[in-house]
Amino acid sequence: MSDRIHATYWVETAFPLQQAAEVLAGEQSSGTFISLPGETPELKARHGAVVEHIEELGSVDTPSLPDAGVPKGETSPKWRRAHVQVSWPLDNLGPSLPNLQATVAGNLFELKQFSGLSLIGLSLPPAFRDAYPGPQFGVAGTRKLTGVEKLPLIGTIVKPSVGLSPADTAAIVRQLAQGGLDFIKDDELQADGPHSPFAERVDKVMHVLRSHADRTGKMVMFAFNVTGEIDEMRRRHDLVVEAGGTCVMASMHSVGLPGMTALRSHSRLPIHAHRNGWGVYGRSPHLGIDYKAWQKFWRLAGADHMHVNGLRNKFCEADESVVSSAKECLTPMFEGEGRGCEVMPVFSSGQWADQAFDTYAALGSSDLIHAAGGGIMGHPGGIAAGAASMRAAWEGALAGLTREQVAAASPEFRQAREQFGS
Amino acid sequence: MSDRIHATYWVETAFPLQQAAEVLAGEQSSGTFISLPGETPELKARHGAVVEHIEELGSVDTPSLPDAGVPKGETSPKWRRAHVQVSWPLDNLGPSLPNLQATVAGNLFELKQFSGLSLIGLSLPPAFRDAYPGPQFGVAGTRKLTGVEKLPLIGTIVKPSVGLSPADTAAIVRQLAQGGLDFIKDDELQADGPHSPFAERVDKVMHVLRSHADRTGKMVMFAFNVTGEIDEMRRRHDLVVEAGGTCVMASMHSVGLPGMTALRSHSRLPIHAHRNGWGVYGRSPHLGIDYKAWQKFWRLAGADHMHVNGLRNKFCEADESVVSSAKECLTPMFEGEGRGCEVMPVFSSGQWADQAFDTYAALGSSDLIHAAGGGIMGHPGGIAAGAASMRAAWEGALAGLTREQVAAASPEFRQAREQFGS
Repeated sequence: MSDRIHATYWVETAFPLQQAAEVLAGEQSSGTFISLPGETPELKARHGAVVEHIEELGSVDTPSLPDAGVPKGETSPKWRRAHVQVSWPLDNLGPSLPNLQATVAGNLFELKQFSGLSLIGLSLPPAFRDAYPGPQFGVAGTRKLTGVEKLPLIGTIVKPSVGLSPADTAAIVRQLAQGGLDFIKDDELQADGPHSPFAERVDKVMHVLRSHADRTGKMVMFAFNVTGEIDEMRRRHDLVVEAGGTCVMASMHSVGLPGMTALRSHSRLPIHAHRNGWGVYGRSPHLGIDYKAWQKFWRLAGADHMHVNGLRNKFCEADESVVSSAKECLTPMFEGEGRGCEVMPVFSSGQWADQAFDTYAALGSSDLIHAAGGGIMGHPGGIAAGAASMRAAWEGALAGLTREQVAAASPEFRQAREQFGS
Repeated sequence: MSDRIHATYWVETAFPLQQAAEVLAGEQSSGTFISLPGETPELKARHGAVVEHIEELGSVDTPSLPDAGVPKGETSPKWRRAHVQVSWPLDNLGPSLPNLQATVAGNLFELKQFSGLSLIGLSLPPAFRDAYPGPQFGVAGTRKLTGVEKLPLIGTIVKPSVGLSPADTAAIVRQLAQGGLDFIKDDELQADGPHSPFAERVDKVMHVLRSHADRTGKMVMFAFNVTGEIDEMRRRHDLVVEAGGTCVMASMHSVGLPGMTALRSHSRLPIHAHRNGWGVYGRSPHLGIDYKAWQKFWRLAGADHMHVNGLRNKFCEADESVVSSAKECLTPMFEGEGRGCEVMPVFSSGQWADQAFDTYAALGSSDLIHAAGGGIMGHPGGIAAGAASMRAAWEGALAGLTREQVAAASPEFRQAREQFGS
């Protein structure tokens, strides 16, 4: 396998593509503003980033982003679009995720040459796998902890997002556990606010979940939101472990890559990685970082579960983007033997039983967490019926049944269709 | 002063503005997908985010970002633009920067209601000032360490960005120190790669700078790029301290907020905060986070110097945006007595002596680092003449002289104009 880092960009430029790509490669490696004595041909050959491949995609008449430059004398420029692959020798930086970010996603989005630039692909040499632990639990570890062998973990989120006291939260968790959920998470807005101190929330919620496990033999996985400063996250993790909890959650963009790595190195539990703020990177087709590339950073850093949005979600993301992200989560990051850093994709947002069918059809796997809020709590038969409707749909999807066949056999799925179907 | 968090957004929406703003406020506070028993009027009143103010800015016929929703039945929607201010009670989250990020810049950029959304302003209650240390050195501490009392620190960056050995780097630093520079920094692509191990680079560079200080009494400030994992950053910082160095540098987006806070709590040196990757947030006028809002996170977390780009830079940013960012760096974050968390703005990119005049005119201050690469190293009279041209320009600007008056008195400035002027 190559010992180089490969990154692929979608670009738009008024300059000849090769020239624009060379500027990007130079800026992000051995390039200088002016020619300097130290910038020898030997140094450039050893450390310069290389433009490996350019695939032209056509052109448009108006630039997608403002303030880009045009070639001198050009009065009616065409804005060419292309996929550009650039490679770097690993030795420019070594296997360091924070420095990888500065290299492949640093000072390049604002280069004058581009009226659009998005990092859409990333391939890393195995040295990164050796330098980082990757997910500690992943799919198999999460299934083992929850005792869910075949179906997706059926999950939900405690709502209202903020305002509930620890006792209120525990009361809702009791209902959710009794309703048969496998997985429950804090909202990302809920970490350690004065109205719901983390320690007290863990205490109250885990009291409920331990009692439930004593009675039923099933320990529901609750992802406690430990997002905070490095020491806070470690302390909060320890509280969860001491209380018998089985999962912690962190918001990726809030904790940063070194924050995730630090949490992973300390953690004895799966890390549920929340992607809130992702829209800044992924909402524009002309600027940002595609989730397919971006998630690789977090998988190496140690996330076990990663949010991918859901089919027919209430946000702006198209279904094909959601599917592409989720497939990537389950695809090994490295060729050959050894850890592939696969993580469990988390589908959520506007979900109910119905999406089980297309999610399975698109993904070809049930190794995921399927989280529904209204689709479970708003089910006319109550929480247990909501969870049952999700399981019936997944059982049916896995068995190759149609929605109609499942509806004929499952009153809960039938009710869900009546309530949520359009 | 208010005990609430205020955030201002630029938005674009096909929905009535009040309605769209309420969705954002609900989503980021006590809102739920469906109405739940726990979401009482009391809870909403206590924890719901409040739409404080809407200023309509006109409308456009086509949406700026794809995939936004339109009101039901609407066939030819207008896309209204507005500034929307939303406030949250501090008690929703407590004074935590990572959780503040999830609240004001979390799951909102991809809301269906918006065809454009950017966080453009942020005002925080004093509890944040009490919870975070802010800059340890800031302007005064940096001036004291460098002995530069009135002018900006005249600085530069070691180039080529990558490929130089520690000995090569030290050789360039020797020339730069002899040339009279106040400040030198690593490139953001250079941290601890195999070709330039951090410890060896510190050793070789500080040997040069200590000798220079012994001879001249002037310790040049060198910002060593410590960007990496949390423990790595601490160890690298300690190496710099042991070698007598006076500054460390970290890439903000690479280390994350908790990474910056952890470095700050450990650090005995100013932290030079590099903003590479900023283009993802700031390049699009229709999506992202304005630097005026974003920098407040990093100032509280402990940055001492913050990159703001430069006037007539080689990137896409307009001058007024650069000036606005820099002014913000020097503006107290909190009203009344106590720390204002002012940081030293760092001007760089395509700089030479000439920009001293408009930079001073726009900023009304010389409390900044003015970094030039080609403008110093490419000066026909050599590095010392390049630095002298920058100082002559700043002396002149501060004395109210014109470029022509400075050119008449300073041969170095005259030469710079001949070389770099258009």
